Amino acid sequence: MSDTTDLFYTAHVFLCTNERPEGHPRGSCAAHGSVKLRDYMKARAKEFGLNDQRIRTQQAGCLDRCELGPVMVIYPEGVWYAPRTKEDIDEILLTHLRDGKRVERLMLLPTDTERAAFEARQAASA
Amino acid sequence: MSDTTDLFYTAHVFLCTNERPEGHPRGSCAAHGSVKLRDYMKARAKEFGLNDQRIRTQQAGCLDRCELGPVMVIYPEGVWYAPRTKEDIDEILLTHLRDGKRVERLMLLPTDTERAAFEARQAASA
Repeated sequence: MSDTTDLFYTAHVFLCTNERPEGHPRGSCAAHGSVKLRDYMKARAKEFGLNDQRIRTQQAGCLDRCELGPVMVIYPEGVWYAPRTKEDIDEILLTHLRDGKRVERLMLLPTDTERAAFEARQAASA
Repeated sequence: MSDTTDLFYTAHVFLCTNERPEGHPRGSCAAHGSVKLRDYMKARAKEFGLNDQRIRTQQAGCLDRCELGPVMVIYPEGVWYAPRTKEDIDEILLTHLRDGKRVERLMLLPTDTERAAFEARQAASA
């Protein structure tokens, strides 16, 4: 993997805004409110001064973890989050992007595939 | 940065399909044919057997390098390419994703901002 000097963005945040037809068995991030979260994320990143030339927050098409949506991934680290609320977005922006730490309660593991299991782990660690 | 065992995707390819209004001074990836390239990329990744659970090719919103579009970035490496043709897509899929090498002639440097300079460098190295 690259040294940060080789990177165009030191942090590149992709939030899925894919929409599937209503009733689709996998659901979709848009059906879970990701479009509003994207708008909020971009506005807040600007407010927090995080939208400089080395950090970018943006939308992406389907990240293929629909069951856990809304989902986002931060590269080059490859850290995934499942934000639900504006407060979740603020916490990710400030704790992860500004402070370089992790928001453990919102992090998805590579092994997470089902929302119920993810939420059970969240509840157990709360 | 993460060890690959911590990654959901070992290679996550984002091709910009953002469209700006006709005549916009920055241009856009869609105006340079990125939508067709995305469709081709996804179909070919499948044909080449590259669409397994650890590799994903997909579209993204604006990657903010519009002047160089169509642009794509492969994470977690953070390697950027400016593919123009279906042959370029094939070469990136096979050389980069399958063989783990680089397609130097299509790579964007972090310092690239203008299409003319990028194309001049390509021409000089051809």
